[in-house]
Amino acid sequence: MILLRRLVGDVLRRRRQVQGRTLREVSESARVSLGYLSEVERGQKEASSELLAAICDALEMRMSDLMREVSESLAAAEVAITNVLPLEPLPAPAAGEPQVVAAA
Amino acid sequence: MILLRRLVGDVLRRRRQVQGRTLREVSESARVSLGYLSEVERGQKEASSELLAAICDALEMRMSDLMREVSESLAAAEVAITNVLPLEPLPAPAAGEPQVVAAA
Repeated sequence: MILLRRLVGDVLRRRRQVQGRTLREVSESARVSLGYLSEVERGQKEASSELLAAICDALEMRMSDLMREVSESLAAAEVAITNVLPLEPLPAPAAGEPQVVAAA
Repeated sequence: MILLRRLVGDVLRRRRQVQGRTLREVSESARVSLGYLSEVERGQKEASSELLAAICDALEMRMSDLMREVSESLAAAEVAITNVLPLEPLPAPAAGEPQVVAAA
């Protein structure tokens, strides 16, 4: 499953790194905790709408631009997933082999 | 402040209504509670990435399309906010002229 928060985190992290800023700098500017920002960037925590707006402000980024970039990443990921969806049933996994979980 | 969850909820609700489906139908298809879906549509609750994916599936909508529509709504709202932040005092509207109401 493609997780929105991962793609949001990727875009936020790239933006911060392009600006050459540390997690600490941006977290202080956005008034969010460093740990929270770090978890959001890694896609481990959902950012609330209010905190996402504060982080965008700190990164001098319009939220519409964040969402446009996220939409483009999503579209690319959707195409990639479509291309790996088999038209024929997969063979049953051999014993001990990790099960493939269907992406919803 | 423009709240992302309100715009997400607006897009989801419009999509459901265009399909002529009830909250109950979509909540059952997405396997989320009716109350949760209703709160998400009204922008009162943040949808987790997992549940947003399930709701998009139920609405037969790509998440990238949801985010593109949200991005476009955000851009329009940002322009509206920029336009009501005057650099100089606005002239008083003539009598009978429609008042411009600031979009929150």
